[in-house]
Amino acid sequence: MSQPSANPTYKLTYFNVKALAEPIRVLFAYGGIDYEDVRFQREEWPAIKPTMPMGQAPVLDVDGIRVHQSVSIARYIAKKVGLSGANDWESLLIDVAVDTVNDLRQKISIAQYEPDEAVKAKKFEVLKSETLPFYLEKLESIAKENNGYLALGKLTWADLYFVGLLDYLNFMIGFDLTTDRPNLKKVVDNVTAIESIKAWIAKRPETEC
Amino acid sequence: MSQPSANPTYKLTYFNVKALAEPIRVLFAYGGIDYEDVRFQREEWPAIKPTMPMGQAPVLDVDGIRVHQSVSIARYIAKKVGLSGANDWESLLIDVAVDTVNDLRQKISIAQYEPDEAVKAKKFEVLKSETLPFYLEKLESIAKENNGYLALGKLTWADLYFVGLLDYLNFMIGFDLTTDRPNLKKVVDNVTAIESIKAWIAKRPETEC
Repeated sequence: MSQPSANPTYKLTYFNVKALAEPIRVLFAYGGIDYEDVRFQREEWPAIKPTMPMGQAPVLDVDGIRVHQSVSIARYIAKKVGLSGANDWESLLIDVAVDTVNDLRQKISIAQYEPDEAVKAKKFEVLKSETLPFYLEKLESIAKENNGYLALGKLTWADLYFVGLLDYLNFMIGFDLTTDRPNLKKVVDNVTAIESIKAWIAKRPETEC
Repeated sequence: MSQPSANPTYKLTYFNVKALAEPIRVLFAYGGIDYEDVRFQREEWPAIKPTMPMGQAPVLDVDGIRVHQSVSIARYIAKKVGLSGANDWESLLIDVAVDTVNDLRQKISIAQYEPDEAVKAKKFEVLKSETLPFYLEKLESIAKENNGYLALGKLTWADLYFVGLLDYLNFMIGFDLTTDRPNLKKVVDNVTAIESIKAWIAKRPETEC
C-alpha cells in the first residue's frame, strides 16, 4: 500500500467553480499549504470523466496518488492544518456538523439536478417552504449555541466546510442562506476574517458558483 | 463542553429495522461493546421525531449526551473498536470507501423515497440500467484489488459499514447487490465469518430491512 511522503505534493482537479472543491481550497489556504489548483472547463468534462475514480470530481493527487470524495479529502486536509478534533469526541461533533451541512447540500441538489422541469419546480417548492426553513432554523440555533461556530464553540473545519460551500448553495437556491440568520452570518464572518482565507478569497478566480 | 467518560454508557435509538443503524450495531458487536438497543415502532415516529436533533434517527446517547448522523457515529465507534486507520492516510482511504458506499445508498434512496409514482418508476429504470451497474462494477473491482475488503487490503470499518447496510440496500432495489459479484460477496463473507458478528446476526431481531 503506497503512502505519500511526509511533505507531499498536492494537485486538486475540478471544474472552474467553487462548489465541492472550495472547502478543500479554503482549508489549503488556511494552512498555507501549496497545491496545484487545476481547473478544467465544462466542455472538457466528458473526456475527463472516464479518467476519474467513480467518474466524479474533485480529485486530489497526493504525491501522485489520486483520491476522490470531497468530504473525505477535506477531513484529511483539516487534520494537516490543525482544524480537526483534539480527541475522538471532538472529531465526532465536528463530523456531525459537517454531515448536517452536507445533508442540506444534498437536499438542495436533489431539487437542482432533477431532470424533469415540472418535478423540479415541485421539489423547489417543498425545499423553499419546508426543508430550508427547518434546516436554517436548526443551523442558526447550532451557530448561536456555539458562539458563531458550528461545533465545539470554536473554529473547526466544519466552519470552513460550510463557508467554502455556501456560495454554491446560495447559487442553487437563488438567495443568501444567511439572510436574517445573524449567527450563521457570524460563522461566515469568523471564517472570512482569517487573514489567509481573506487573501485567498481576494485572489481566487471569479466564478459563477 | 461536556465530554463522555472513559467507559461511557451507550444507548442507540432507531426504528425496529436494520437500515441506517445496523452498521453501528455491527460495530458494537465486533468490539463486544454493551449498549442499549432501543427500537421504536413506525407508528411511534411522529411523536418521537420532534424530540430528535434534526428530526432524524438513529441517534446515539453517550453517557446521556445525544448525537445524530449515522456515518459520523459509525466512524466514532470504529475508533473505539480498532477498525479505523492506523494513520491519517489510512483513515482517508477508509472514509473514501465509506462515502462511496453511501453515495450508492443515496442514489438508491432518491429513487426509493420519490413521492410521485411515475417519477419513481422512471428513477428506478435509470438506477437499474445505469447507476447500479456502474457502481457495482466499480465496487467489485475495488473489492478485488483489496483482496475481499473495501480499503487497505484488510478489515476496516468500511467493510462493516457496507455489510451492515447491505440488507437495506437489497430491500430497496429488490435483489442482492452481490449477485454475480464474487469479490463483493467475499467482503460479506469476510465480515460475517467474524464470530462476534456471526453471533449478533444469529440473535438480532428479524426485520424486513
